[in-house]
Amino acid sequence: MRTFVLLVITVLGASLGSTASAVAVKPETAVNYRQGIYHAILWNFAPMAQMVQGRQPWNQATFAQGAARIAFYSQQLLEGFPPGSLTARSEAKPAIWQHWTEFSTKMRNFENASATLAMVAKSGDEAASKVAFGKTAQTCKSCHDAFRKE
Amino acid sequence: MRTFVLLVITVLGASLGSTASAVAVKPETAVNYRQGIYHAILWNFAPMAQMVQGRQPWNQATFAQGAARIAFYSQQLLEGFPPGSLTARSEAKPAIWQHWTEFSTKMRNFENASATLAMVAKSGDEAASKVAFGKTAQTCKSCHDAFRKE
Repeated sequence: MRTFVLLVITVLGASLGSTASAVAVKPETAVNYRQGIYHAILWNFAPMAQMVQGRQPWNQATFAQGAARIAFYSQQLLEGFPPGSLTARSEAKPAIWQHWTEFSTKMRNFENASATLAMVAKSGDEAASKVAFGKTAQTCKSCHDAFRKE
Repeated sequence: MRTFVLLVITVLGASLGSTASAVAVKPETAVNYRQGIYHAILWNFAPMAQMVQGRQPWNQATFAQGAARIAFYSQQLLEGFPPGSLTARSEAKPAIWQHWTEFSTKMRNFENASATLAMVAKSGDEAASKVAFGKTAQTCKSCHDAFRKE
């Protein structure tokens, strides 16, 4: 166990740089993290979208579970965009750090919309769930349009 | 908004295949998802490991937050390993699907250990937190040793 922990620290130390603070996180590490969160969001968002469009049978429980997860993931994203974390593989536009207030506001909008979606979905109201889903999707689009590479 | 949702569904439909069930999820989609969750776990695990080893100042609140997140992520992993989801980029060994009972048991061990870690960390007991962290790390190692490519 100790060996494993030391191995993890060595590997992570190499990938994370200084131990001082998140500022020292290597760009690739941040990119892997945030893209990971986005993939997790997509994993849950996709079947929900298909339900909303009637391409998959409506299942309130599955929809609510996806919504709860997305609400959680939405809160994990902002920290994945530390300054200087642009890499060739990143889909982030440099504008994010030039317009951080706008970016973080759009992220907050996503957090709020997905929190509402989770609450509504849990209530069991199918119609309201679809409305809340649409509003959440709008927050995704708003941020992507401004800050995500084509 | 509707256009965005339709775009998402089209893109996701292409990537997810049939709408029938998760069985039809494309291998690459599952790989992206589960690797995303693992990256998210690592993002939180790394600073916790450094605290446990005294390479970073102990911060119970930060440690507890990381533990709570990891406990959540641990429950999102198993579904990311549907049958037939091996790709060149995947770090999974085929043994996972040959020994699914063993793999899922090890995953359950990780879920349980990280749930305990989250609870202990929230209690504020630093010493107990370190012990629970070590036990969680053991469950990571146990599964990696058996089912993760070198």
